[in-house]
Amino acid sequence: MTAENEFTVTPYSVDGEIDYEKLLEQFGADPLSDDQITAFPDPPHPLVHRRVFYAERDIDRFLSAVNAGQPHSIVTGRGPSGPMHIGHVLPFYFAKYLQEQTNALVYIPVSDDEKYFLKEMSLEVIGAHTRENLLDLLAVGFDPDRTRIIVDTADGDVVYPLATAFAKAVTQSTIEATYGEPANIGLSFYPAVQATHLLLPQLIEGRHPTLVPIAIDQDPHIRICRDIADKQRYDVDKPSALLSKFLPSLAGPGKMSSSDDAPSILLSDDREAVFEKIRAHAYSGGQSTIDEHRDLGGDPERDTSFQFLSYFFEADDERLERLAQEYRDGSLLSGELKDIAAENIADFLERHQERRRQLGSLVDELPAYRLTDAERKRARQRVGFLDEELF
Amino acid sequence: MTAENEFTVTPYSVDGEIDYEKLLEQFGADPLSDDQITAFPDPPHPLVHRRVFYAERDIDRFLSAVNAGQPHSIVTGRGPSGPMHIGHVLPFYFAKYLQEQTNALVYIPVSDDEKYFLKEMSLEVIGAHTRENLLDLLAVGFDPDRTRIIVDTADGDVVYPLATAFAKAVTQSTIEATYGEPANIGLSFYPAVQATHLLLPQLIEGRHPTLVPIAIDQDPHIRICRDIADKQRYDVDKPSALLSKFLPSLAGPGKMSSSDDAPSILLSDDREAVFEKIRAHAYSGGQSTIDEHRDLGGDPERDTSFQFLSYFFEADDERLERLAQEYRDGSLLSGELKDIAAENIADFLERHQERRRQLGSLVDELPAYRLTDAERKRARQRVGFLDEELF
Repeated sequence: MTAENEFTVTPYSVDGEIDYEKLLEQFGADPLSDDQITAFPDPPHPLVHRRVFYAERDIDRFLSAVNAGQPHSIVTGRGPSGPMHIGHVLPFYFAKYLQEQTNALVYIPVSDDEKYFLKEMSLEVIGAHTRENLLDLLAVGFDPDRTRIIVDTADGDVVYPLATAFAKAVTQSTIEATYGEPANIGLSFYPAVQATHLLLPQLIEGRHPTLVPIAIDQDPHIRICRDIADKQRYDVDKPSALLSKFLPSLAGPGKMSSSDDAPSILLSDDREAVFEKIRAHAYSGGQSTIDEHRDLGGDPERDTSFQFLSYFFEADDERLERLAQEYRDGSLLSGELKDIAAENIADFLERHQERRRQLGSLVDELPAYRLTDAERKRARQRVGFLDEELF
Repeated sequence: MTAENEFTVTPYSVDGEIDYEKLLEQFGADPLSDDQITAFPDPPHPLVHRRVFYAERDIDRFLSAVNAGQPHSIVTGRGPSGPMHIGHVLPFYFAKYLQEQTNALVYIPVSDDEKYFLKEMSLEVIGAHTRENLLDLLAVGFDPDRTRIIVDTADGDVVYPLATAFAKAVTQSTIEATYGEPANIGLSFYPAVQATHLLLPQLIEGRHPTLVPIAIDQDPHIRICRDIADKQRYDVDKPSALLSKFLPSLAGPGKMSSSDDAPSILLSDDREAVFEKIRAHAYSGGQSTIDEHRDLGGDPERDTSFQFLSYFFEADDERLERLAQEYRDGSLLSGELKDIAAENIADFLERHQERRRQLGSLVDELPAYRLTDAERKRARQRVGFLDEELF
């Protein structure tokens, strides 16, 4: 626990009420500027122009490549420790949106190793989540020719030699200064695996800007990877980061997580479940009685239903502004706002679930997204392994 | 450096004059007993009955399996940081001898990752040593049907998931208490890779006793692996250890290493080079003049040439005893003893080199010794990965 007005944010724990501006100072990242938002392909994704992605490291390099039609990639990953909720899937829909607009390569690392190291879960349980999560990732609808999915323990033939190459540049004291004392030696090593994820597109496709859209708590991984890229003089650019706030929890401010007390809206929830969860649990920015609300109005900025709409689930800026206005002036009630959010989220989930139903089995669908043998070999060779003579 | 009469022995540094008995107390291993020596298949290898292998952990389990004709395996590895010298190759010839006598499975892990983490060497240089060392390992003449060679970074598809499974059971503080502060996070993780090496035969072939014949400085790896086997309740026996003294350096007592000041006898040395190195550098237990030597005799126990013969290079016990006797009584001179040792070592190396010359390229020869796809899958499944649904 932290004292009032204090908070801690590391990749392994988020605690307290987060001051996002202060966090940028702590981490040494920059706020996303208006010019940078404008430099995104038009129309910019709501997550960008509404500043859910509110900060960045070194993003100009990536945006220049996008605008010059030069190669560029996006890396955004998944830790498979449970079923995916709507907060988990937004970065993937964002990546898919960019892929459609700019033809970006998208690399999706699935860090089953990290989750096993972190959680009281067996490999079997993590494995079951991995398979479920993979189907959800495939349901997003990436272009298989421009997308690669890496599962750390299933792609050890490329993950381990690359992580080995990078691990030498990272001291144990760097890890402990960044993350605190790791619970086991798997977590000590894991940042080298994370660096592998972030550098893999360049190791396979040659030097180019890579964007990592990621919740701000994961920024320390980026910093370590950027240091590695600096130190080891592989021919790679340091990855750029696009850092987001957390999707609000139904219970109010803070990070939405499947392990919180308040329920999360899962990708598998049906329409009824979505309405039930939002009606029963969504933190309201309205007044406690209808009369009071008609009189005083609500605060959309403190209302989870509005936040959901604003972050992702209402793409139409004018409609969103109208809802905010009506909520503030009291003509839109909390219950009505909740139902609008639930409606939009349920629509989104039905489309997602329908695409997931259309998929064949993982055995049939995944191979199109896995690294090819030539890509694996190229990555290993780029860090110094001379496969061709060994095999 | 250590004070006089002190010594330190860890897997990463050996310093001072070693008191092998004291080391056993420090490490908590047991001396090899007469009964245990007798339980080795007849005739016991000189390295055993002359107590170069002088200590053990839990070896009765292994010997019982051998004598009952039950499955058993040997794991003995190589760190490819340079050309191999005669000290490096002895455990492999010992393993081959046991394989011929008992049909033992032999697993040979090549820890290129560890050497990269430890040394100021690039992956390219380590890779070149790996390829050379592999040819020397193949030249030993193992039975490819009963032998597997694993190269950590080339077999990451099996090494990484297994090491992941084990790493969770090892805390960073265990590592630091055992090895001291690691230089980088690769070395923090490496004990999980080492445990993978030692448990791999059982994970592939089912539970059975595994013997690890190894220089005593590597014992901490065994202890960590035995703890892991205890903690994680995989269905495996804790590996047994057969612990050796160090082959004496040409320069006298201490560990023989390619990086010492005194030259080592390399597997690639020709007859002339062997004679030259021994004549010029082998530490002598004789007297400083011939007259003195004839008068007072020499001390075979302090004579490197005699030690070489006794450890490995003179299999005939009677001849060895006669040489010791003649050296002690002064009738055998230091120079004569040196030439006998050089002759035997050169003969051994010529046979080794001839077998190496008979080999085809690594690309042609190695595949017979690599893990099969079915073996890789079985090992992953044994620790909890459910490949068949993912692929």
